[in-house]
Amino acid sequence: MNPTAAIIIIGNEILSGRTQDININYIAKQLAIAGIKLKEARVIPDDPKVIINTVNEIRAAVDYVFTTGGIGPTHDDITSDCIAEAFGVPNQIHQESFQLLEEYIGKENFNEARQRMAHIPLGATPIKNTISVAPGYVIGNVYVMAGVPKIMQSMLDAIIPSLRHGAPIISKTWYSYDASEGKIAADLNAIQNKFPQTDVGSYPFYQSEKYKGIALVVKGQDQQAVELASQEIYNLFVRMGYQPTEGEPH
Amino acid sequence: MNPTAAIIIIGNEILSGRTQDININYIAKQLAIAGIKLKEARVIPDDPKVIINTVNEIRAAVDYVFTTGGIGPTHDDITSDCIAEAFGVPNQIHQESFQLLEEYIGKENFNEARQRMAHIPLGATPIKNTISVAPGYVIGNVYVMAGVPKIMQSMLDAIIPSLRHGAPIISKTWYSYDASEGKIAADLNAIQNKFPQTDVGSYPFYQSEKYKGIALVVKGQDQQAVELASQEIYNLFVRMGYQPTEGEPH
Repeated sequence: MNPTAAIIIIGNEILSGRTQDININYIAKQLAIAGIKLKEARVIPDDPKVIINTVNEIRAAVDYVFTTGGIGPTHDDITSDCIAEAFGVPNQIHQESFQLLEEYIGKENFNEARQRMAHIPLGATPIKNTISVAPGYVIGNVYVMAGVPKIMQSMLDAIIPSLRHGAPIISKTWYSYDASEGKIAADLNAIQNKFPQTDVGSYPFYQSEKYKGIALVVKGQDQQAVELASQEIYNLFVRMGYQPTEGEPH
Repeated sequence: MNPTAAIIIIGNEILSGRTQDININYIAKQLAIAGIKLKEARVIPDDPKVIINTVNEIRAAVDYVFTTGGIGPTHDDITSDCIAEAFGVPNQIHQESFQLLEEYIGKENFNEARQRMAHIPLGATPIKNTISVAPGYVIGNVYVMAGVPKIMQSMLDAIIPSLRHGAPIISKTWYSYDASEGKIAADLNAIQNKFPQTDVGSYPFYQSEKYKGIALVVKGQDQQAVELASQEIYNLFVRMGYQPTEGEPH
């Protein structure tokens, strides 16, 4: 069985519409490459009760939990206090991180607010931040990362090699302009039924103002099944008079 | 009290990393304008049990639930069957939608797969789709919309006027290049404490490869409090030697 994962995006700025989240997509792609199945992603507010309950619910349900957001120096950065409470441990100074931050920021500027970034829950292991030093960390199966995409990405890149990887998910895509889902739906369903060990998905895409076509995606761990299903998808497009192109539409 | 809402994004393509979701952000923005508080957004897979359980859990917790995805004609479009099961009603032909689709698609091409798009749960009211006719619908407090962003947007625009609106959330933002969160954190916390009826948020932003600055956002329903807090944020930037600019950084 492939390992499973979930994402918790902590941030009022996503729920207010201020910020377009791009962290889910980055994490999802990296997990797919590692053969780790992403079961769910949640966006939740900067609310201690919600954060604590969500972390405790989700860490019991999947192998790996990834959180983003709320580990900076300002008053709205409450993630570490909440993670500590979820695990029933104190949120305390991590000496090595403290020293790294003090060196990076300079002793005279390393004020109380900035020292908050050197606090991590007792028992957590820091995750290196190659951009701005203030660490993420892992505690149990929960990986706590920054919300700023560049920093989150540097942390995730450091985490991925340490995770248990699963069999890679193989994916093949054909798309065709002017193809219509309704026309191919019955035959596509037959392909799905013929290759139950794969997941066959149909995704309409638009470019500019008008309907442009559909992309048919087959995914699975059984390479032969994926390739056979992909061949049948190609044949289906051709049989319906559509011109198939391999890969994702641009 | 302002009405509350949650979003359920139904789609393997988001969890696999194939597709960058942009529906949460669009819905979040429209809800904020309408004074409706978005409490949570979830991305879940095309899995009947997960869809049914999530819909039933969330519709009990908020005033309005918005789902996107899974209402097309192909075998992976399972949302309507799941919503019907969540409400304990049959998923059946809606005559008016059937006729509209039959006219739009043409009788000879209106096959069984396409007729699935005219099925909605018993007791649901269709939501007009001005792009490709196949309707969304509302049942109870659950609004079921397409996953394709353009179509979802046309449906949401039709829904918004029918919802109970709350007092609008007023928001003021100042940003400054080169400002540092750690330097202003203590004073910013004091502003938050002085205006507890507002939410004060601090958001670092990056442009190109290097750290560029922070945006300070104050939100709330009490216009005077928001403006006073915003004035203090401006003063704080100036006091620290930063040049404040009103609005969001580009």
